[in-house]
Formats: sequence, C-alpha cells, structure tokens
Amino acid sequence: MKKISVAIVGYGNIGKFVVEALQTAPDMEIAGVVRRSLSEEKPLELTNIPVVTDIQELGKVDVAILSTPSRKVEENAQKYLAMGIHTVDSFDIHSDIWQLKQNLDTTAKANQAVSIISAGWDPGSDSVVRALLQAAAPKGLTYTNFGPGMSMGHSVAAKAIEGVKDALSMTIPLGTGIHRRMVYIELEEGYAFEQVAAAIKADNYFSHDETHVMQVDDINAIKDMGHGVNMTRKGVSGKTQNQLFEFNMRINNPALTAQMLVAVARASMKQRPGCYTMIEIPVIDLLAGDRESLIKQLV
Amino acid sequence: MKKISVAIVGYGNIGKFVVEALQTAPDMEIAGVVRRSLSEEKPLELTNIPVVTDIQELGKVDVAILSTPSRKVEENAQKYLAMGIHTVDSFDIHSDIWQLKQNLDTTAKANQAVSIISAGWDPGSDSVVRALLQAAAPKGLTYTNFGPGMSMGHSVAAKAIEGVKDALSMTIPLGTGIHRRMVYIELEEGYAFEQVAAAIKADNYFSHDETHVMQVDDINAIKDMGHGVNMTRKGVSGKTQNQLFEFNMRINNPALTAQMLVAVARASMKQRPGCYTMIEIPVIDLLAGDRESLIKQLV
Repeated sequence: MKKISVAIVGYGNIGKFVVEALQTAPDMEIAGVVRRSLSEEKPLELTNIPVVTDIQELGKVDVAILSTPSRKVEENAQKYLAMGIHTVDSFDIHSDIWQLKQNLDTTAKANQAVSIISAGWDPGSDSVVRALLQAAAPKGLTYTNFGPGMSMGHSVAAKAIEGVKDALSMTIPLGTGIHRRMVYIELEEGYAFEQVAAAIKADNYFSHDETHVMQVDDINAIKDMGHGVNMTRKGVSGKTQNQLFEFNMRINNPALTAQMLVAVARASMKQRPGCYTMIEIPVIDLLAGDRESLIKQLV
Repeated sequence: MKKISVAIVGYGNIGKFVVEALQTAPDMEIAGVVRRSLSEEKPLELTNIPVVTDIQELGKVDVAILSTPSRKVEENAQKYLAMGIHTVDSFDIHSDIWQLKQNLDTTAKANQAVSIISAGWDPGSDSVVRALLQAAAPKGLTYTNFGPGMSMGHSVAAKAIEGVKDALSMTIPLGTGIHRRMVYIELEEGYAFEQVAAAIKADNYFSHDETHVMQVDDINAIKDMGHGVNMTRKGVSGKTQNQLFEFNMRINNPALTAQMLVAVARASMKQRPGCYTMIEIPVIDLLAGDRESLIKQLV
C-alpha cells in the first residue's frame, strides 16, 4: 500500500509531536519538515528527516500539516492549496473559523485540494462531541470547562505586559464555562510587582475573569503541558427532559493536538475538494485500517 | 422550506418516542405511522396522525424510521429502500451489522436511496465517541460500561425461561466492560423459585456474567427506562502515554434512541445513495439549522 506523504510546516511544540505521531502511523510517511530558515542547528530527533525551507524540495507531498501559530495558517494554507497539496491545521481563533473556511474553500476547490481546519482538540475533537451531544438532546445547555492546564494564548498575553520577563497562565475550571486565571510571572528587574499585576488584571485577556497573579523565580520550573476538559450537556431528547451527558479528558496538550492533525491529514485524502471543519467529515475517515474491521470493532 | 416527510414503522416503546422527537423537529413532519394491523384501538396521542398498514397510503414519504425489533429491520428496510424511501434503524445485533450494511447497500444504491443503520445510542452515538477516541489515542484500551439500567434483550431472555411470568434484567457496571445482571422475576404459579433461578443463571445470556435472581410481586412496579453509559479510554497519542478520556451519560433509553433516529433521518437526506453506519456520516448532518450557524456555534 502506498503511504500518505506528509510534510510538517513549522517546528515548534506541536511540530515535534506531529513527527512522533507520524512515526507511529502505519499508513503515513514523513516527507520532511519545512522551516522559515535553516539557521538553527538541526534538532537531534530530525537527523534522518529532510529539513527544508521550500516544500518543493521534498518531492511529492500529499498533505502539509501546518503546525505554525494560528495567525500564519491562512497564508501557508493558501500557498500549499494552490500547489494542489492538502492542508490541515489547528487554527483556534473561534471567531474567525467561518471566514477562514470560506477563504480556503475557494482555493481548495480551484486546485482539487482538501483543507481541514481547526482540527486540534478544541476546536477539533471537542467540536465533534459538542455537535453529537446537540444531536442527542437538541434543547439544552452545553458547558465546556477547560483545565486545569496552561493556556498558551493567555501566557503570551501576560508575557507581553511591560515588566514581565516570562509568564505562565493556568486555566482553572469553575464550572458552567467559568474559568479562573492563575498567572505566574517572572518580573523584569526594576519593576514593581503590584503595578505589573494590576496591568495584567486590566488586560482584555484577563479583565473578564477572576485573575490571580503570583511572582515566581523560574517559570520553566512550573511548566507542564497537561490539560483537561470537562464538557457537560443537560438537555431534552424529543420531549424527555433531564438527559445528562459528560465528556472528560486529561491529556498532554500538544501531543493530542498533533495526533488529531495526523488523523485529519489521513481524512483529507478521502474528502472531495473543499475546506472542512472536523464536524463536517465522517469520524471513520480519521482512522487507519480497513473499513470492515473498523466498523466491526467500533460500531 | 419544504419539510422532510417521515413515516414511523412500528409503534412500540421506541416508536412512541419517535413521534415526540419528530414533533419537536423544526424541519420534519410526520407522514404517519405504519403498523402490522389496525386491530388495536388507536392510541390517544395518534389522534391527528394517520395510522396505516401500507406506507403507500401516506403519500410522499422521504424517510421511514424503522422502530421495529432488530430482527425485523432487514425485511422492512429492503422493502422501503426498493421503493426509493430512505430508511434508518437502531439495529443492535453487533455481530450482524456488517452483513446488514452489505445487504442494504446494494438495494439502496439500486434505488437511489440511503439507509443509516444501527443508529441508536449503542450502537450509534457511542460508536461515534468510540471512533473519535481511537483517533485521539490510536493505541490503548476502550471500555464501554453500561448501566445501571434495564437490558431489553436480557429481560426478554429471562421471560422466555419456563416458570417466569414476567422479568426485568438490570445491567450493573462493574468497570472494564464487566457487568453484573440483577434479574427480577414474577413466578408462574406451581413453579419453584430455586429451580427457575438456576435455569436463568444457566441460560447463555447470563451464564458468562455474575447473575443474581430475585423474586418480586410486580415487575411493573420496578420498571424504569433510565439507562447509563460510562466509556473510558486510556491510550497513547503519538508516543505520549497516559492520555485519559471518559464519556458518561444518564438518559431515558427509548427517548435517546428515538432522538438519534430522528437525527439520522435528517442526515439520510444529505448522503449519497448507499448504506451507512453512524461513524460514516458527518456529525453536522445530524443537526437542524444552517451550516454557517452550526459551525460558528459548535466548532
């Protein structure tokens, strides 16, 4: 069987875990890693993997996994889709997903390519569960509670405040979709903690949530990439009230994101040209193996 | 917008709840109920709904929801698919699902119709969660634990034992997919409880599980259609161990089955001809409403 040839675009936290997930996938092979520049020393784990700045140096690539920051996704996706290469990403700016889908759909269809966007765990696998629970009980309320775990976005936002040398923002679930922010900071010399803490609490990222700021000596010493989700839905099936559903997970954040990206890379080979979110593709397409065994085992 | 016209075939426990679910669906209308005979008095809740013995008396029907016992599914599905009517069912004999899919696929394709099979909650919505968790952590173990709740199949099996007037078999989850059976029976006159209890425990339905049999005066007084699921997966994403997932629900059993059947009836309108299980259709197709709002709300 011909393996699916996959390029990894961007090699940060997620990219590293994408390499590992591809190495364990029976039906895929790594074409190589695409980076902005080759100035950094090649990481040891990439010793036997081509690292290039232009995807065309990698020969035939079926799918590009975009493991870049969300704001770089559209530019990269447009470029690769125009070459007829499928793209997948974990774009996580919820308010912009629909527009991104429209923009990429046009390019994908024009080039007989497939793009699957926002395919990490939230948005991503959580979205599939949310949609399924809405089908199971169409009337009702779903709450998605995150954490305890590190929020990348909030950590970056805290780090951008003047006087903050490094920051880690933990998301603590308080139930019903309400979250507490526990922000740990290393202070730049010459700054007063109280003022910096006040600036963080006033920032738009934090001002709507209960936020606590604490000073620590070493952010690196408290960093842990575990994360969690608790999703609940209480609703009505037909005319029957009080149908109760709950989905929980405790996971390594970049490892799960990377695994979902690899799963949708596989699924991209089975869709018609266009741009999709995860709730628009059959779950079976995420899985390796033949249809008959999968259905016998899972249905 | 033209509503989807749906017939309900069979009017037992599930059928009653299908009527309710259809009455709350904004995009569907009830064409009528198809029963084997009209000898029984028409139930009050069907006063304004046509009840017939032949689906052709109902005019144009888009989808037939088969709420008959599993063993009647294929015969009915073949008949309606041959008329070009989509069919959906909650066929739950796990070992026969693949063969049923093959058989119905041929008829569906020959008649430009769609069949979605085994679409209750297990098999059904649970299957979607199982497949999704396998994508999230391809190596590992999933356990589906059922209950506490009434098992229809085991209750019928217990009732079939000589000397049993009526029976209720409760499924009690012991974890890791192991279940206890609590069997409550009304005894026929002239039978000894100990002998009947021994016969139940020796039956193939019960002999592999821890089974307790108890005598009660009135089965009806203890019947409750609530049920539950606890599904867990502990597995590996890429090369990262100990990824933990859990799905729980506490639900009215026939109400959820009926709601899923109505959701797949909707989805049947959006698939290409053929026969599908729930893991083969996009979750978004289960939902009422326009694609843009659904994606904005759920992804």
